[in-house]
Amino acid sequence: MRAAVLTAKQSIKTVDQTTRSLFDTEVKVRIHAGGICGSDLHYFHHYKMGDFPVLEPFILGHEAAGIIEEIGPGVHNIHVGDKVVINPSQPCRNCEYCIKGRELLCNDMKFLGSSRKFPHIQGMFSEIFITDQKQCFKVPSELSLSVAAFAEPLAVALHAINQAGPLLGAEVLISGSGPIGALVLLAAKLAGARSVTMTDIRDAPLSVVSELGADKTFNVNSGASILTDEDNPRGNFDIAFDASGSLQAVLAAINNIRPGGTLIQIGTFAEANILLPSDQLMIKEIIMKSSFRFDKEFAWAVDYLAKNRIDVMPLLTHTFPMEDANEAFLTASDRENAMKVQLSF
Amino acid sequence: MRAAVLTAKQSIKTVDQTTRSLFDTEVKVRIHAGGICGSDLHYFHHYKMGDFPVLEPFILGHEAAGIIEEIGPGVHNIHVGDKVVINPSQPCRNCEYCIKGRELLCNDMKFLGSSRKFPHIQGMFSEIFITDQKQCFKVPSELSLSVAAFAEPLAVALHAINQAGPLLGAEVLISGSGPIGALVLLAAKLAGARSVTMTDIRDAPLSVVSELGADKTFNVNSGASILTDEDNPRGNFDIAFDASGSLQAVLAAINNIRPGGTLIQIGTFAEANILLPSDQLMIKEIIMKSSFRFDKEFAWAVDYLAKNRIDVMPLLTHTFPMEDANEAFLTASDRENAMKVQLSF
Amino acid sequence: MRAAVLTAKQSIKTVDQTTRSLFDTEVKVRIHAGGICGSDLHYFHHYKMGDFPVLEPFILGHEAAGIIEEIGPGVHNIHVGDKVVINPSQPCRNCEYCIKGRELLCNDMKFLGSSRKFPHIQGMFSEIFITDQKQCFKVPSELSLSVAAFAEPLAVALHAINQAGPLLGAEVLISGSGPIGALVLLAAKLAGARSVTMTDIRDAPLSVVSELGADKTFNVNSGASILTDEDNPRGNFDIAFDASGSLQAVLAAINNIRPGGTLIQIGTFAEANILLPSDQLMIKEIIMKSSFRFDKEFAWAVDYLAKNRIDVMPLLTHTFPMEDANEAFLTASDRENAMKVQLSF
Amino acid sequence: MRAAVLTAKQSIKTVDQTTRSLFDTEVKVRIHAGGICGSDLHYFHHYKMGDFPVLEPFILGHEAAGIIEEIGPGVHNIHVGDKVVINPSQPCRNCEYCIKGRELLCNDMKFLGSSRKFPHIQGMFSEIFITDQKQCFKVPSELSLSVAAFAEPLAVALHAINQAGPLLGAEVLISGSGPIGALVLLAAKLAGARSVTMTDIRDAPLSVVSELGADKTFNVNSGASILTDEDNPRGNFDIAFDASGSLQAVLAAINNIRPGGTLIQIGTFAEANILLPSDQLMIKEIIMKSSFRFDKEFAWAVDYLAKNRIDVMPLLTHTFPMEDANEAFLTASDRENAMKVQLSF
Repeated sequence: MRAAVLTAKQSIKTVDQTTRSLFDTEVKVRIHAGGICGSDLHYFHHYKMGDFPVLEPFILGHEAAGIIEEIGPGVHNIHVGDKVVINPSQPCRNCEYCIKGRELLCNDMKFLGSSRKFPHIQGMFSEIFITDQKQCFKVPSELSLSVAAFAEPLAVALHAINQAGPLLGAEVLISGSGPIGALVLLAAKLAGARSVTMTDIRDAPLSVVSELGADKTFNVNSGASILTDEDNPRGNFDIAFDASGSLQAVLAAINNIRPGGTLIQIGTFAEANILLPSDQLMIKEIIMKSSFRFDKEFAWAVDYLAKNRIDVMPLLTHTFPMEDANEAFLTASDRENAMKVQLSF
Repeated sequence: MRAAVLTAKQSIKTVDQTTRSLFDTEVKVRIHAGGICGSDLHYFHHYKMGDFPVLEPFILGHEAAGIIEEIGPGVHNIHVGDKVVINPSQPCRNCEYCIKGRELLCNDMKFLGSSRKFPHIQGMFSEIFITDQKQCFKVPSELSLSVAAFAEPLAVALHAINQAGPLLGAEVLISGSGPIGALVLLAAKLAGARSVTMTDIRDAPLSVVSELGADKTFNVNSGASILTDEDNPRGNFDIAFDASGSLQAVLAAINNIRPGGTLIQIGTFAEANILLPSDQLMIKEIIMKSSFRFDKEFAWAVDYLAKNRIDVMPLLTHTFPMEDANEAFLTASDRENAMKVQLSF
Repeated sequence: MRAAVLTAKQSIKTVDQTTRSLFDTEVKVRIHAGGICGSDLHYFHHYKMGDFPVLEPFILGHEAAGIIEEIGPGVHNIHVGDKVVINPSQPCRNCEYCIKGRELLCNDMKFLGSSRKFPHIQGMFSEIFITDQKQCFKVPSELSLSVAAFAEPLAVALHAINQAGPLLGAEVLISGSGPIGALVLLAAKLAGARSVTMTDIRDAPLSVVSELGADKTFNVNSGASILTDEDNPRGNFDIAFDASGSLQAVLAAINNIRPGGTLIQIGTFAEANILLPSDQLMIKEIIMKSSFRFDKEFAWAVDYLAKNRIDVMPLLTHTFPMEDANEAFLTASDRENAMKVQLSF
Repeated sequence: MRAAVLTAKQSIKTVDQTTRSLFDTEVKVRIHAGGICGSDLHYFHHYKMGDFPVLEPFILGHEAAGIIEEIGPGVHNIHVGDKVVINPSQPCRNCEYCIKGRELLCNDMKFLGSSRKFPHIQGMFSEIFITDQKQCFKVPSELSLSVAAFAEPLAVALHAINQAGPLLGAEVLISGSGPIGALVLLAAKLAGARSVTMTDIRDAPLSVVSELGADKTFNVNSGASILTDEDNPRGNFDIAFDASGSLQAVLAAINNIRPGGTLIQIGTFAEANILLPSDQLMIKEIIMKSSFRFDKEFAWAVDYLAKNRIDVMPLLTHTFPMEDANEAFLTASDRENAMKVQLSF
């Protein structure tokens, strides 16, 4: 079988690899669709993630769906031919955080396609992926695997929504209108947000999210910092999600959150450190939270997709065969033209 | 002007009344549509509400919308010709509960069309209703006043949802598929509930809620108490709403709520006292809450209706002119044929 | 070694038993002190627990502390001679509730000294008790084992407090002034409750809790139902804990909880079904919760006892040697004279 | 009567002023004790507060207690001779935040002794202070007015605790061991914190808080950033309070908060902007909140002081007559020697 291996900055090579036989509860999945995420792009361009350099060529990919090709002797409830989407989150289930039910904070997380550990945890951008049955979530046979592969980024969005508490009645601001921002929009509407206002520094993604249902959009490239209406000079958003990783966007959000409101940071910042206006945070008693990956929301995402409660297809702008992975990654980096880009295998 | 006055059990008379001039911040509303609620039916059939007898003929009606006909000299932001829906909740804004922001618990609530105080607080089933501007919520001119008059019962449903916390990812059970149960269904879906299962003791309302989006429906007339799937014998509903006021329904709900789940009581019980299974509540640590009327959710309801986020029209099965109020009340009492019945003026 | 075996109603026999060798991570504990709990008394008098009859003679006891006498080869951090208190809660750590971090709701709980499963799970009223190291919590060598044996009932009280949310600033009502009620008092004060009012139907326990710090006490034997001050006729308690299992006490609590307040049921009701005033619950939007055993609070209880943050000794009114278990149980049943009764081994 | 008027940087002058007659619900209080707060010191040294310069000489002081000397004709429940402490927080009770019960976020707050509005709101460092009866909280006649004057800073501490949610079972870190840090310690213990670790850059305040009950203290002057135990390299504090306003302290706190933990910022930062480690906040999903003044906690503070539940006297290191206000402020600025400094009148 072949895999798309990241070997250096901006270099992904298609490499032949051998597969192995299955252990007891393992399954062999033939991958059909794999989405490229912002963190994949970061690896591609910088060959590192935050403080964690890539120390050996490795396979990216943590948004993938496929068809079961073979099952181990101890596998139940999953059969050859089933369509599945794979949960890339592999907590240890043994540390204090797993035991408390907060698996995403696991002391020994093995997240697929990540260089935080060494040897690195291989991702799923390959024709065949072997994993334990408990990582696999079945989807209906009539669901497109391209849609199923959205389960992971949708889980990220649902987790962010979950961090915010109930959205019913809430006026919501989302900064950053890329794939995650757009999924947060869909998730916020799913959760009943009263209105969603979105910002970006480019018009193209703003017109996409407008069509997806954003109530208002603002291009903040010019630096406009007050989005709020005149009747509420102290801010009128109950909850702001930052999916941009831009400090300027966070500052604008803080200006526009109402006193007592909440800011949820989803995107990772480009800079290691962020400079925040302490007096504003204090006087308005703004609550700041970060939203890191997801927990139980993966199962929810699969379910909402399976039931067509969320339509992600308008976000899928490009699909490339795995052989053209480099072109796919470059396309995904062009936020003027691309939203979600997937590889096909 | 004429008003529909409840004068005895099952007797509403159309009576001529004089109107008066407006105080400073008052408005005169020409009522167009007024919904009949379960509590109105209770007054109609029993001439009392719980322990509060009707002590003088009075006007029912707390779900009404109309058009502004005249405004007092101190009225701002509302103009003659505006369509408005009237919030029947009139808290004192001065007691400890109002000051804490929990107005529905007000020590001196004057709720329209209620006999809890004497003289009774007159309701809105009349051609003209005078109220303070702060009770009026403008709706778009293109919104039907029949839809606008759903703001109050929808607020009741939204408040119940709000009592439950976030519904994202939740498996929901609603017992009782009358108008309130159906609105709770719409509100639960609006808030992102993963699935909604509904019960009733009649097939007719169950087929209505099926069309409105209930994922599963059960006729529990035969006494079936286990609705839950075999994989979850201890119950698989995260949250149950009771909109039936039936003890049998509450017991079935308790059997089918998962350990750690929540039961929200919306309907008032027919009996004064309810008999609950203490051991089940204990071992499953079930949380029980009651949901009484609404607070800020009235404004939300208006907004969701104005934005067509919720389609209540399938619930409006009958409209009668005010002269036929007695027939309207009898029709509304027939749960086999009617969901929401409105009066027109 | 000898054990105190419950063989029939009101019959505990001291029986010789053989011990076995230890598995990998097991330890052998020489029990020194074991408290008698309300559920033990229920087994003693009724030879059943709720719907679960005793099907074979078995050993009671889930509040016990002792000294490590031997350790298995895989035991770490515990040594021969250590003083330990044993956590009787043995969740499966594998079901959905355990995985969610809600172990007390475990689908397959093996709680020591309980007849809910068959074969019954043996308790600790014996000279020697073998258990896994993870059930053992070390206590300081200077801590009395009689005090250490309070960790379990204190954990029950702390869990009840935890169910209530923050107590800072809260006016608290506790119905039932037996050992659990008294521990809830101590825990409520530990958590900063602004005041604690306690009730009982006997004067003797009320004078004990008065000395322990209850701000007010009421003997409700005469049926007095209004404990609240005249300025707050709708109730002035933010949170009420019922540790009596008496329906009359719960009704009085509901009358005296302020609108929006919370009722936490701790004691199991004598009757299988409880009759509740639905209108009161509705109009005041009272939240009802049950508090069943404990989770992480066991570790907290050990810590608070080890640090002398809570003084439980005034509650220990009697200690009997295990040979006199029947007398001990009869004494513990006499609420006029006894609070907590322990066995010594 | 005489007042202590701030006229320039480091210049307070004792000035004769005339008093006026009382309106309906007003009272005249003869001030006995007034505490100097960190914000008073900031005014004294910088003649501004954040972005709000002092535009006219004005009277500082928002922590004061005294004796009622005269009452207006509409005053109830307060009598001449009563000891009272005055709540300096004067929300409008009419804006959306007041109506929601979040008065501290009031759109039109008139906080005593503050230059945020112009004309500035006069403080209480004067012999006579006239205020509305609703600002006055009676204290027992046997309570020292020096103790009563701690109600305001204690309310600040209680509000910070309240922002954190339940502290039962929590390991707490407090950075900054000045008067506010010390009061947060007392409040955290009152609320049942399992342990409290405190830091400062000076030994003197650390030895004070040690005596007040801090479980561990660290002098972080040398820059030590890891306070956490070796078993928990990712941090072992559930909740950290920053009462230092030092960025270095906040960074150390973030390093030592456990994943999923909470940081409450109480002190205002010296710098307008703070630089935060975004990756740490993200991976540990740390919740950041600010705690600004107080709401209902003022009444609680009065009650806990009146009932001797909190002993603040060890914090009162100096008292100066109002004539020596400049010396008092200089002494209060010397954190090596002073904790709370009060003026007497």
